[in-house]
Amino acid sequence: MHQAVELFIQDLAVIMLVAGVVTLIFHRFKQPVVLGYIVAGAIIGPHTPPFSLITDQHTIQILAELGVIFLLFSLGLEFSLKKLGKVGATAFVTALAEITLMLWIGYEIGVYFGWKTMDAVFLGAMLAVSSTTIIVKALDELGMKHERFAQLIFGILIVEDVLAIGMIALLSGIATSGSVDAGDAAITIGKLVLFMIVALVLGILIVPRLLDYVARFHSKEMLLVTVLGLCFGFCLLVMKLNYSVALGAFIIGAVMAESRHLYRIEHLIEPIRDMFSAIFFVAIGLLFNPAILAQYWLPITLITLAVVIGKVLSCSLGTFLSGHDGRTSMRVGMGLAQIGEFSFIIAALGVSLKVTSDFLYPTVVAVSAMTTLLTPYLIKLADPLSARLATAMPDKMSAVFGMYSSWLGSLQPQGDRAALSRIIRQILMQVIVNLALVAAVFIVAAYFADSLGRSMASWVADPEIQKAVVWGGALVLSLPFLIATYRKLQALSMLLAEIGVKPELAGSHSRGVRRVIAEVIPVVSIIGIMLMMAALSSRILPPTKLLILVLIGAAGLVLLLWQRLVKLHSKLQIALHETLEQPPDEKK
Amino acid sequence: MHQAVELFIQDLAVIMLVAGVVTLIFHRFKQPVVLGYIVAGAIIGPHTPPFSLITDQHTIQILAELGVIFLLFSLGLEFSLKKLGKVGATAFVTALAEITLMLWIGYEIGVYFGWKTMDAVFLGAMLAVSSTTIIVKALDELGMKHERFAQLIFGILIVEDVLAIGMIALLSGIATSGSVDAGDAAITIGKLVLFMIVALVLGILIVPRLLDYVARFHSKEMLLVTVLGLCFGFCLLVMKLNYSVALGAFIIGAVMAESRHLYRIEHLIEPIRDMFSAIFFVAIGLLFNPAILAQYWLPITLITLAVVIGKVLSCSLGTFLSGHDGRTSMRVGMGLAQIGEFSFIIAALGVSLKVTSDFLYPTVVAVSAMTTLLTPYLIKLADPLSARLATAMPDKMSAVFGMYSSWLGSLQPQGDRAALSRIIRQILMQVIVNLALVAAVFIVAAYFADSLGRSMASWVADPEIQKAVVWGGALVLSLPFLIATYRKLQALSMLLAEIGVKPELAGSHSRGVRRVIAEVIPVVSIIGIMLMMAALSSRILPPTKLLILVLIGAAGLVLLLWQRLVKLHSKLQIALHETLEQPPDEKK
Repeated sequence: MHQAVELFIQDLAVIMLVAGVVTLIFHRFKQPVVLGYIVAGAIIGPHTPPFSLITDQHTIQILAELGVIFLLFSLGLEFSLKKLGKVGATAFVTALAEITLMLWIGYEIGVYFGWKTMDAVFLGAMLAVSSTTIIVKALDELGMKHERFAQLIFGILIVEDVLAIGMIALLSGIATSGSVDAGDAAITIGKLVLFMIVALVLGILIVPRLLDYVARFHSKEMLLVTVLGLCFGFCLLVMKLNYSVALGAFIIGAVMAESRHLYRIEHLIEPIRDMFSAIFFVAIGLLFNPAILAQYWLPITLITLAVVIGKVLSCSLGTFLSGHDGRTSMRVGMGLAQIGEFSFIIAALGVSLKVTSDFLYPTVVAVSAMTTLLTPYLIKLADPLSARLATAMPDKMSAVFGMYSSWLGSLQPQGDRAALSRIIRQILMQVIVNLALVAAVFIVAAYFADSLGRSMASWVADPEIQKAVVWGGALVLSLPFLIATYRKLQALSMLLAEIGVKPELAGSHSRGVRRVIAEVIPVVSIIGIMLMMAALSSRILPPTKLLILVLIGAAGLVLLLWQRLVKLHSKLQIALHETLEQPPDEKK
Repeated sequence: MHQAVELFIQDLAVIMLVAGVVTLIFHRFKQPVVLGYIVAGAIIGPHTPPFSLITDQHTIQILAELGVIFLLFSLGLEFSLKKLGKVGATAFVTALAEITLMLWIGYEIGVYFGWKTMDAVFLGAMLAVSSTTIIVKALDELGMKHERFAQLIFGILIVEDVLAIGMIALLSGIATSGSVDAGDAAITIGKLVLFMIVALVLGILIVPRLLDYVARFHSKEMLLVTVLGLCFGFCLLVMKLNYSVALGAFIIGAVMAESRHLYRIEHLIEPIRDMFSAIFFVAIGLLFNPAILAQYWLPITLITLAVVIGKVLSCSLGTFLSGHDGRTSMRVGMGLAQIGEFSFIIAALGVSLKVTSDFLYPTVVAVSAMTTLLTPYLIKLADPLSARLATAMPDKMSAVFGMYSSWLGSLQPQGDRAALSRIIRQILMQVIVNLALVAAVFIVAAYFADSLGRSMASWVADPEIQKAVVWGGALVLSLPFLIATYRKLQALSMLLAEIGVKPELAGSHSRGVRRVIAEVIPVVSIIGIMLMMAALSSRILPPTKLLILVLIGAAGLVLLLWQRLVKLHSKLQIALHETLEQPPDEKK
């Protein structure tokens, strides 16, 4: 015990001391601190002379995992549904363009060098996402953090983070199942989206209220313990569901971002994050093998070029195509041209799942180091380059670009139409959230059906009736959300009927046609939903006779309690909105 | 790896979630959070039903050790040489009285119950020191933190902490050597004091300047990494010297307390300390076995009574005897009547050194829980009790107490005499510090003599000459401090001659006698010091012929460079004073 403690403290001392000295040197020469950590790790590590200065690499790797958790938890805290709504289309278009292109380029490079399929897939994933940490530091040092293009970059990074989280979940699935099947992928993504929606909705309903309660005691210590408990607890739940711990940390961070005590939480978590993320980046350096660097210099150079060129092109074009001027687009593209922490997380995932080859990790670390070094210079290069491009461009081409811009502008809905499309979007969003909750109720019920059945075995012996009880219970639980869905769909179809059925065409029947549309759409949809639920819960679906009984009972309940169920749902909805609308307390 | 990470996160989640819920309940009922942690640990632990919720107790215990480091580092940050000077005599008298009495009572209780000698010794040590954490929380909740008696309590706690640190070092020595030898103990204490002086002086010269340099970059992250690096690095050094990690954390904290960036450091360390100290207290609960509680109810009750009565008596009396009124003394005594974190640290030391029996740990935890629960009530009881005592006391006795107070007042040196005694104290202090540095130089030289000898083997083959070189080097290095000592002693003896030799007695010879005294004392002392150095470095002392050569060389050097050496020393002294004098930056 005593021996183990001494070795552990020795490892921590070596990590922090070497990291401190190296990052001081890096900071002195205006290089990012993150690079300093990685170099410190390489110095300490076993692959560089004289020998490994770390006695227990296993424990350090476990602590590094805490670094991932706190890095992503912090990212989640900075994530905000509202912010995401504002940068909207541009961020989605650009991030999607970048990730798709880089996934493909990375995969192709892997195939070109004859690497294993899984290596190629992981390489693509590692190149797909840019580094928030490095960009924030670079923009900070250049004093450009508050310019317009910087805001665009942050929006793109948020979308990238979400997509990357999804990608990590997919990769884990692919790595364990060993194959990429379109249907499986769709199911995986569907489940993931479902899980994220349910976790966010339930989390935002519960967690900020809980934090409010704890914060009333004015004890930093208790707030911290609660935050850490929720964070680790949720990460554990997510790991039990076979998702990555990164996903859990990000979601619970995003949930806490809606708390009034956001700034206080950020303040408490910052030093802990800095401590463990230092260990995380040093641990990356520990795995860095310079011998592999010498052997793989060609792929490293090629991948570095691919990252810079691919990202600059895809991000600049994406930004430009969503309606920004050339200079801004170029700046956005140049700013995003590097890879960082997510690539390491994905690389670590590959190593821990034992599906990637040994050379991949140091290769990606080398590429990240190179692109990180280039980032500030690229950002500075953006303005002269876009000016040069503008003058060098043939007149015809600029005329085409000009036409594109004005065409794009004409596409934006204006006035009434804009308001209408916003309302429709909103209703659709609410329907999706409600259906996700219904689906979650039935999936959870199916998951626990066996143990629920066992626990009621003493009262109800017949397994068929047990099934009926569980299924009926799930149905009752989801009634408020089903009714809400029905009402939203009714409102939507009335709106659509109003717009879609023009009196000029339907003549005197227009009123009747409208009514039919407004009644038929929601009923048809709700039947579709019921079928979907039946499919989701096929494992616990009772036999037809019992099912009909259950459905009749539920129908009776709906008729009896309609008003109450509507009220219950609107209470929940109001609670959710309140939390989302309230601004966080002042910084203190 | 993946499995290990999942289990690790599961353990953390369980610890933080249970700790969060239990401390919330404890806080709700106005009980200290620390107790909540311990109860949470007991619930999680293996000794309570249903079973252990922790999968890897080993890793948790290692993390708990980080809790000890950060707790004592924080205590060190709050420690201040200046503050200690202010509360001065009272704190020393009271703390010494308390620790001596409680050590004795604890030991006797152990002997009474027929426990092993080592159990009795450790029990004494565990009862000796009161709990800073619990007192601060209790006074905070009672709104008494800024009253005069609270300041006295904090002073006593500081002295107790220092004495406890010394006690821990002694206990480690006793536990490993297995015996208590007065001579060995004296040597151990001497070495410890020497180490603390040298570490504090060198630390205060180097560390705040280093932190100033790092703070210039305005990066919280780099400041944190530097602070952690220094903290772990120093703890490692201390562990390599076979002292406890607690000592290291406390000293490096006390060193950083002299930095201008104290508040910033406290701010960064606070959440990290809270996280790991939560783990530490929960880990204490993990070891708690209620079965032992039932079995050892008699000793637990007796020890609890002994702690309360012994501490109230010793601390009240100590405070009263150093010249405070009855009410203040009673409040101080009541406030200090509990045991806490240091008792756990000492208990953990006993467990990790495998010298104490299994029942000791839960016994002490139970006693700490009981006394902690009593603390707020005792503090509230202090005023009525002292009023009751004052009226119930026979007149004669209060007359005696009154006489004591006025006699004590007359003892305090006044006017010139006070100034003189302050100067003499100051000079003696400087002499001690310089001699400690000289001793450290020779001890370090002796320690590294062999490897230094080997490294110069190619130039100097004769081991005798090697010794002479090493010894001579140490002598040259310590010359500035020796010269400073000589000059301070000269000043002191002149002062003493001036006061001590009264013209009425020595008559016309008084001038001559004074001069003789002023010349003789420093020369005799410096010869004594040289002999002491020779004894300290006996292992590397060159043979007489070479020794004389080295001494002649050193004497030549002294004559040549006297001025420069004096200047060098005063520069160091000024640097030290500057650091000690500067106030920390504003809180921000």
